[in-house]
Amino acid sequence: MTVEPDWIAVDWGTSHARAWAMSGEAVLAEGAPGPGMGTLSPDGFAPALARMIDGWRITPEIPVVACGMVGAKQGWHDAGYRTVPATPLPDRLARVPADIALHIVPGLSQTAPADVMRGEETQIAGFLALNPDFDGAICLPGSHSKWVQISAGEVVSFRTMMTGELFAALSRETILRHSVGEGWDDAAFAEAVSETLSRPEALAARLFSIRAEGLLAGLSPGAAQARLSGLLIGAELAAAKPYWLGMPVALIGAATLAGRYATALEMQGLQVVRTRGEALTLRGLTAALGSTKGNTA
Amino acid sequence: MTVEPDWIAVDWGTSHARAWAMSGEAVLAEGAPGPGMGTLSPDGFAPALARMIDGWRITPEIPVVACGMVGAKQGWHDAGYRTVPATPLPDRLARVPADIALHIVPGLSQTAPADVMRGEETQIAGFLALNPDFDGAICLPGSHSKWVQISAGEVVSFRTMMTGELFAALSRETILRHSVGEGWDDAAFAEAVSETLSRPEALAARLFSIRAEGLLAGLSPGAAQARLSGLLIGAELAAAKPYWLGMPVALIGAATLAGRYATALEMQGLQVVRTRGEALTLRGLTAALGSTKGNTA
Repeated sequence: MTVEPDWIAVDWGTSHARAWAMSGEAVLAEGAPGPGMGTLSPDGFAPALARMIDGWRITPEIPVVACGMVGAKQGWHDAGYRTVPATPLPDRLARVPADIALHIVPGLSQTAPADVMRGEETQIAGFLALNPDFDGAICLPGSHSKWVQISAGEVVSFRTMMTGELFAALSRETILRHSVGEGWDDAAFAEAVSETLSRPEALAARLFSIRAEGLLAGLSPGAAQARLSGLLIGAELAAAKPYWLGMPVALIGAATLAGRYATALEMQGLQVVRTRGEALTLRGLTAALGSTKGNTA
Repeated sequence: MTVEPDWIAVDWGTSHARAWAMSGEAVLAEGAPGPGMGTLSPDGFAPALARMIDGWRITPEIPVVACGMVGAKQGWHDAGYRTVPATPLPDRLARVPADIALHIVPGLSQTAPADVMRGEETQIAGFLALNPDFDGAICLPGSHSKWVQISAGEVVSFRTMMTGELFAALSRETILRHSVGEGWDDAAFAEAVSETLSRPEALAARLFSIRAEGLLAGLSPGAAQARLSGLLIGAELAAAKPYWLGMPVALIGAATLAGRYATALEMQGLQVVRTRGEALTLRGLTAALGSTKGNTA
């Protein structure tokens, strides 16, 4: 059966790329996985996309709407940033120079404190399309977790925490690699979250205690992993407190990681709404499609 | 000229090893540099030491006094830990099984909060040999910075902060590697120290702002390095505040790094005494020699 999309949705991040053949809001097919922006030079994007959507019947007029690092300075085309406060998507999405009808969603930036996002704005747009009256905080956990303040359909402010990258670097590249391993311990996680959330200054000292307790007290690799995760998520929640304190919180992310954040936030007495990221990206790209009409390169 | 030592001093750490031919407190010669504990299996230490001291005239009775990771579980021989509060060195240093008269200084451990040190206890002993009346805090900056409370010649308590390893992992293994580079900026360092010392919960969010300011505001690689260093040292000082607040502080370490700590501590109105680590290690090993007399394997 030939795939004949009306338009093509593309989520192109640092480490991977995905494309969907779309008909309105419906997914007709998913393309082959593609290489992330991190491994491509600017002239590598067009052939990579061609391989991802190989076999689909398309014309040069079919809109291709992409979000993520594909729009970074080192990406296919620099889509720039829009400064907050702002709606997550622009009213009008410019077509960028390419042999196809390519539109790339710009990122969001914040002047003070300096911050940037690229890709998450599309998930936020998808969330707001489904929850137009949401006022509160959106948390998108990940390598670079984002905390986003939403009011009246706009991103008012946001902060990025490098929690995921810190976890990976600490558990792989430091002496903690000898202590952290497979497994989990709910109690160790909860205790560690409370510790750095209530005493964020303890973080620097508590990290090494994971190693010391491994040597002296037989801390298991799974409990060590749970404690490291808890210490870092607790530190993130301490930094993000102005976002979540007394506010509705929506969590957007993969099941395991978002589950940890939900546990940590529920320990603070919060009600947390959880949504999966992939569906929101597609919903956000669908919303972005509406901003492409009539635009030319 | 033949080197004829009375005894041999050895500083054997994770990444390198050094040996000195000694006559009492005087250094007769320094041996060839040797491999660190991290690259050796237990039966590799004896031949490695033989190469380091090749050409020296020694007998099997000449004491060899070693400190550092050579005494770890994965080292030449597990020298164990002594629990604080304790003097930095034991009254009696046991000879360990070897074809030479080898004595390894044990490390120090703390039960709660769990912590360990191995090697630093010898530098502390050297410092106290030179400053027997010192009461206050000793800071040994490094990959694993140590903060040590000294009273009446004893180590009362200590904490390890992974500041140096965190700096290396963040500046090499995360997105900050695109922003951090050569150079320095005193003002950026001072501002960052103040920030995380006064608001330690800001650390998680401030790390990514180094990247964001690189993208949006042209933060230079040198200013980025100074800021990363300042944020982490400020977080360390926040965690170590019970050690240094209102106390005399002695800094033991290499010139550049100890200089940064001195700057950060002097910003808090403290008087800081600085000493170089190498001389203290030799002084401490000399003190340890006095604990070897009459001991046999």
